[in-house]
Amino acid sequence: MKQLTDQKVNDYLTHLGKFGHLENGGVTRLVYDDDWVAAMAFVLDDARRRGFKTAIDSYGNGFMSFPGKKSQQIVAAGSHLDTVNQAGLYDGAYGVAAAILAMNELVDQYGQPNQTMTSVAFSEEEGSRFPTSFSGSKHYAGVQETDPTLRDKQGITFSQARKLAVSQLADRFPIVEQPLPSEFFEVHIEQGPVLEEKGLPIGIVSAICEQKRFTVTVHGQANHAGTTPQHLRKDALKAAVRLIERLDEQAQKIGEPLVFTVGELTVAPGSANVIPGTVTFSVDVRHPEQAVVDRFENFLRAQAVVAPLVRVDVDRWMDSRPAVMDSRLVHQFEQLVTQKGLNYLKLPSGAGHDTQIMNLKVPTAMLFVPSKNGISHSPAEYTAPADLRAGIDVLKAQLYQECYE
Amino acid sequence: MKQLTDQKVNDYLTHLGKFGHLENGGVTRLVYDDDWVAAMAFVLDDARRRGFKTAIDSYGNGFMSFPGKKSQQIVAAGSHLDTVNQAGLYDGAYGVAAAILAMNELVDQYGQPNQTMTSVAFSEEEGSRFPTSFSGSKHYAGVQETDPTLRDKQGITFSQARKLAVSQLADRFPIVEQPLPSEFFEVHIEQGPVLEEKGLPIGIVSAICEQKRFTVTVHGQANHAGTTPQHLRKDALKAAVRLIERLDEQAQKIGEPLVFTVGELTVAPGSANVIPGTVTFSVDVRHPEQAVVDRFENFLRAQAVVAPLVRVDVDRWMDSRPAVMDSRLVHQFEQLVTQKGLNYLKLPSGAGHDTQIMNLKVPTAMLFVPSKNGISHSPAEYTAPADLRAGIDVLKAQLYQECYE
Repeated sequence: MKQLTDQKVNDYLTHLGKFGHLENGGVTRLVYDDDWVAAMAFVLDDARRRGFKTAIDSYGNGFMSFPGKKSQQIVAAGSHLDTVNQAGLYDGAYGVAAAILAMNELVDQYGQPNQTMTSVAFSEEEGSRFPTSFSGSKHYAGVQETDPTLRDKQGITFSQARKLAVSQLADRFPIVEQPLPSEFFEVHIEQGPVLEEKGLPIGIVSAICEQKRFTVTVHGQANHAGTTPQHLRKDALKAAVRLIERLDEQAQKIGEPLVFTVGELTVAPGSANVIPGTVTFSVDVRHPEQAVVDRFENFLRAQAVVAPLVRVDVDRWMDSRPAVMDSRLVHQFEQLVTQKGLNYLKLPSGAGHDTQIMNLKVPTAMLFVPSKNGISHSPAEYTAPADLRAGIDVLKAQLYQECYE
Repeated sequence: MKQLTDQKVNDYLTHLGKFGHLENGGVTRLVYDDDWVAAMAFVLDDARRRGFKTAIDSYGNGFMSFPGKKSQQIVAAGSHLDTVNQAGLYDGAYGVAAAILAMNELVDQYGQPNQTMTSVAFSEEEGSRFPTSFSGSKHYAGVQETDPTLRDKQGITFSQARKLAVSQLADRFPIVEQPLPSEFFEVHIEQGPVLEEKGLPIGIVSAICEQKRFTVTVHGQANHAGTTPQHLRKDALKAAVRLIERLDEQAQKIGEPLVFTVGELTVAPGSANVIPGTVTFSVDVRHPEQAVVDRFENFLRAQAVVAPLVRVDVDRWMDSRPAVMDSRLVHQFEQLVTQKGLNYLKLPSGAGHDTQIMNLKVPTAMLFVPSKNGISHSPAEYTAPADLRAGIDVLKAQLYQECYE
């Protein structure tokens, strides 16, 4: 019986993964492309066959509902249907599948819910086609409309792509702007190694991290690497190296769950025999508490000022506030997981998710399931069937509490 | 009178700088190009008018001689006529001008020398057209012939370019392969800031530095910057930063005149939100003593082995032996400078020069004059006329000792 059940979510994800399938086993399904339209049509058609009422909104977000007996209040769950380039089968897709399968099973077992249950397949979260992200949840939550003039690499505007894709779905599904739910749930692969390392099947997200990104530019002086004595150098790279070391020491002092990454670094002029004149590097820092990230920023700016011999510019270009999950819903998740005899970890999410947008308007809670080797955004993305099932079971129990009791 | 004399070398360099002149005041004169042919013709013609016997060899090296009364022994001095892209007026050209003017003045003042005095204008030293350098002095010294199949960016082979250029000079100047001199002198701009910083008009080169270059590759593991906790990272950049810090500490411990430069550094995959998987950087280390550079290399290799969590590959792709100047000639330079009431610094050359090739076969000595702000390989290259003159005067005194006494 367990075996059969496990197969269900696998089959769903394998089928969904055919839309945008790559020869290497991965998936590329960018918002509003042909594969995306086919995937959204599949998800909605399949849900309609399962008894859901289906609709899309003007952004192509997919909505699949079981209307409640008692109230207009909507309990929603879901994730996004788009992928990064060269993605795996799980990121986003699993959260859509989990919501649909959980609600489908609840109605099969317990009949019509008291509250309306809605599965949501968001149009876009990854930012992999247009230079924007979370456009689907931002529209649904009424947080922000996307600039219609944004262009993809082919020069197609967001507006053109959106209208074409929505028109292709509109003959089969009504276009209806949706009211906000009263609460929102998302299950997602962890995309990190923590649950696997600890051997735990479930993570309960405490908060989605505050995240800041900076571009740091160190201005030194380019010079001949052979003829300029050490004491007369203004070596931008050595100054950058020292600064990064200080930042890393600070990161270690603060300790986990803070993460600090320098992912980009370029050297100019960039010749083996020329002392670097300018070094530019990125700083990405995340922590569930805004105050901690603010302190790290202050440290960075203070270090920049005192760097000897060079001038350091610090430009902050991303500052996303932390999204703290709803304490009641989190506590309920903890109880439900424990009742199922499962162990769990409460942990912050270092990655961004649609939930952080929904969290701006409604109470939210979020589950993680383990990612093999912590890998995501890769065809090698994998979560064991039993873990996929556990995530659905816990979501199902939560939805039962919220929609039936 | 001093004023008039100073003007002479300036006029020479200004005139020579017309061949390959750029609108920004700089010069680009690549070996065997039209400007190079015109410059070599100018230098030889001018020397012939001054009474030198002129010839070229099959590489287009220019030779201008005053035959000696007493012996076949040749005392040679000179430098190279080619430039880097966007060069100034002084690098190489000054050494050619200094040799010609010094010998010209000696013959004017003292008549025919006892030993043959030869000014040499080397065809190429900079490696700015073909992927090779020192091809002129290597041929003259009989150290190495240049691969004739090497191509420039336009696909022209070294052999094609050489033959065309030499044929354009051959109708005016005999092609004669030249015998080795008994000793060789070069005066050159310092290309560094040391003499200017110390307020000294003359540098006497002790040795041209041992120089090694490496490519260091740090293999870590790329991962999501938000979801991978610090303790589970194999961050190639942070490992590289630590390694560079250790190397810099070691360089400071050894102290000057060692110079250590990381001029290139690249990060892969190179996204702000991805932990670096691979970092590649260059190491350039120079010191007049080979043993010191060898010790630095051993330190680098030992640090590479013990770097935690990552694998570090060290690839040495340049190892140029130090060229120690002849002690008698250096000592004589020191005495002559002092006799002229000038102060000087004995210093190693961190840059390479034709002298290091000649040094493989014959005793050599070399003088530096100050470079304003230490700048070279730039249109902003500048040395004050009085300093240019001082270099010529000291060379002239040395040539007098070696060719007249």
